[in-house]
Amino acid sequence: MDETVRQHKTILEESEMPTAWYNVVPDLPSPPPPALHPGTLEPAGPDDFAPLFPMDLILQEVSMDRYIEIPGAVLDVYRQWRPSPLFRAHRLEKALGTPARIYYKYEGVSPAGSHKPNTAVPQAYYNAKAGVKKLTTETGAGQWGTALAFACALFDLECEVWQVGASYDQKPYRRMMIEAFGGIVHRSPSPLTESGRTYLAADPDHPGSLGIAISEAVEVAAQDPEIRYALGSVLNHVLLHQTIIGEEALLQLKKAGESAPDLIVGCTGGGSNFAGLSFPFLREKLAGNMSPTIRAVEPASCPSLTHGVYAYDFGDAAGLTPLMKMHTLGHDFVPDPIHAGGLRYHGMSPLISHVYELGLMEAVAIPQTECFAAAIQFARTEGIVPAPEPTHALAAAVREALRAKETGEETVILTALCGHGHFDLAAYDAYLSGRMTDEAVSDARFAEALATVPDVGGR
Amino acid sequence: MDETVRQHKTILEESEMPTAWYNVVPDLPSPPPPALHPGTLEPAGPDDFAPLFPMDLILQEVSMDRYIEIPGAVLDVYRQWRPSPLFRAHRLEKALGTPARIYYKYEGVSPAGSHKPNTAVPQAYYNAKAGVKKLTTETGAGQWGTALAFACALFDLECEVWQVGASYDQKPYRRMMIEAFGGIVHRSPSPLTESGRTYLAADPDHPGSLGIAISEAVEVAAQDPEIRYALGSVLNHVLLHQTIIGEEALLQLKKAGESAPDLIVGCTGGGSNFAGLSFPFLREKLAGNMSPTIRAVEPASCPSLTHGVYAYDFGDAAGLTPLMKMHTLGHDFVPDPIHAGGLRYHGMSPLISHVYELGLMEAVAIPQTECFAAAIQFARTEGIVPAPEPTHALAAAVREALRAKETGEETVILTALCGHGHFDLAAYDAYLSGRMTDEAVSDARFAEALATVPDVGGR
Repeated sequence: MDETVRQHKTILEESEMPTAWYNVVPDLPSPPPPALHPGTLEPAGPDDFAPLFPMDLILQEVSMDRYIEIPGAVLDVYRQWRPSPLFRAHRLEKALGTPARIYYKYEGVSPAGSHKPNTAVPQAYYNAKAGVKKLTTETGAGQWGTALAFACALFDLECEVWQVGASYDQKPYRRMMIEAFGGIVHRSPSPLTESGRTYLAADPDHPGSLGIAISEAVEVAAQDPEIRYALGSVLNHVLLHQTIIGEEALLQLKKAGESAPDLIVGCTGGGSNFAGLSFPFLREKLAGNMSPTIRAVEPASCPSLTHGVYAYDFGDAAGLTPLMKMHTLGHDFVPDPIHAGGLRYHGMSPLISHVYELGLMEAVAIPQTECFAAAIQFARTEGIVPAPEPTHALAAAVREALRAKETGEETVILTALCGHGHFDLAAYDAYLSGRMTDEAVSDARFAEALATVPDVGGR
Repeated sequence: MDETVRQHKTILEESEMPTAWYNVVPDLPSPPPPALHPGTLEPAGPDDFAPLFPMDLILQEVSMDRYIEIPGAVLDVYRQWRPSPLFRAHRLEKALGTPARIYYKYEGVSPAGSHKPNTAVPQAYYNAKAGVKKLTTETGAGQWGTALAFACALFDLECEVWQVGASYDQKPYRRMMIEAFGGIVHRSPSPLTESGRTYLAADPDHPGSLGIAISEAVEVAAQDPEIRYALGSVLNHVLLHQTIIGEEALLQLKKAGESAPDLIVGCTGGGSNFAGLSFPFLREKLAGNMSPTIRAVEPASCPSLTHGVYAYDFGDAAGLTPLMKMHTLGHDFVPDPIHAGGLRYHGMSPLISHVYELGLMEAVAIPQTECFAAAIQFARTEGIVPAPEPTHALAAAVREALRAKETGEETVILTALCGHGHFDLAAYDAYLSGRMTDEAVSDARFAEALATVPDVGGR
């Protein structure tokens, strides 16, 4: 029964919230390779994206400005839950017996319970500004669909979500949450699109995939000028919007008395949460102000950075999107049904892939039982039950804290706790009852998937 | 697309958190009637409670001190999520077109997602201090069981929870959350207790009730000196611990530039959330510093204040507890299975009942479809999906805001948003799909239940 006065969280007033997003591209030694038009294989221009996105977002996608001002109407919504808290994990540190100081930036305080509203809100705003009436999107576990439904409610947009069939069946609460915010949810593959009907013809109970759901949402948006598509990760403008996380964390770490983190860890699916936290710190690193190790953590079942190839590939299963140069496991790859649904994406953000190729960050893949062991210890000390996705970051933080225990170093670890696990408790039930196993992965399986990566534009 | 700079939340630093709980009893014109021993009908003394609670809590139960210092170890845990935010509902106000200013004190940021950890943590602390090894308790929807499991994890106590059978069957996620925190959950009625076996003999699929679950937890605790019982509402010491909510809200309203609220609304089941927010304001009212209307909102299906009698009755179904003078619908009353499981208790806190009898507060009962209509409007504007319980407070706040719209008054409304509804989305699904109906209540049914109230100690 420790009676010490300890500060658990570092908060910022609404007036202290950063008012610009940070674009890392102009600070990199070289720009990332452009997206290619799937037909001509020429670099895709703004017009190629126009059927899917409003021009404000397309310009952000290709911007070379270091900072982009956050519109007042977006700041007004952000202020509902931002600045988000930065916590010091005193009790976890004590339980681990580590001299490391562990901080976690917690995005679970948002309306959707994750970092996703950081980009859903500006995407809805810019679409509403452009006169769009409806947004379509895909969702896996449901975090992104929830965020977009919330954002659309605020800007009077309709919201239509294709949810990966397996998640739709297993996690009805996420569908209900999207509906509570006013969104419409379809099980994907659906009979509403050509892409969906193709998969349903092959298997009427098809479990779906993120790639298929993207194909459906893109197909519907491309056919009607009043409908646009919104993506929750991967693209530059999405990563841009998430940098509010890292900008706040920079201010908060300083306020907490830390000069710099030694290690930044975040989980990566499409990469937006990881980039959101780490890119502002990468700016400081490139400027020589600090030298943190920046480490992405991916699931063993879907390790695009550590086991994929760096090549041009499609963002969706049906091949409707432009080709993007990224670390990919092949656009046909269907990962094991792990509980971290948000990390089951075949590709990695092209911008993160580029940063990785430049040697500015590292990556590690961790199997899920180690992640849930860390999550249970975290829940029983820190009181937050994490979403399955950030359990990967926590497991990496625990590894580092135990390493510090060996060496006696007072390592400063900053981790991205991108959401709570209130809708993912079946995963905890599986872990606690001993039913969870590690992913069955093999080099042969990855090799088979990699063979589907198109051979264009160089590798 | 409003570009105005608006402050959405008023936060306090950890250093600004109040360090004492407020006990309203010495400030009341008369003390509440004592609890009675069920055998002798004499006032129950500390020894009568000793088999259930540690002495520190019993002394708080009967304390005449106005302030009780919060132990350092409890403050240390509170700082994890406290001070909780006070939000201004700008977007809801705009949607309603009201000149009223609506504030909500949000307790959903806690580990259990509700106000319950405010008392679970000190209860676990004082029990651990007294050498207790295990706490037993009941839970309905699961908020209280989750809170106690979390608190027990921090103070190395075992935690055994009897969950009302109907909720256990319908809401497995709450059980899983309790297990994630390390607790053990039994479906009530269970074969583990005499009380439980009696009900199971009558009906092997008995849906249970809070009263029955209390009987089971009390029975187990009373038989072993290393086991004690913890209650999540109703009793004085529980209400005491919750006053941290109102003490913070007083500071925050002032910081937000409001001199005083005109109306305070909170939902009431056992009454702890309502008392926690309102008692510090009642102190200011009794001292002549402000004159807010204080209004309890109960469900139409379980209206102990507005339709019960003020009489001595048992706290549990089996009649194992001391007799408490309170507004009761009869300890055998089984309310309709409304979605606000936390409000389905036959009695009202004796202290709140006394304050009500003194004319210091008022009460209203609202049917559930009106509550969910308000909740959906709230979710789509404020971004938080409320638990079914505080939808009652929101509905009352909306009623008042619309009244202010008629009169043009700039009424200041303060409401207790005691938790999020992440585990209650089936209720929203029922509402949105048109399957939710209002409670079937009749005077005849209440009269039948009231006939079971024992005729002792005067009414």
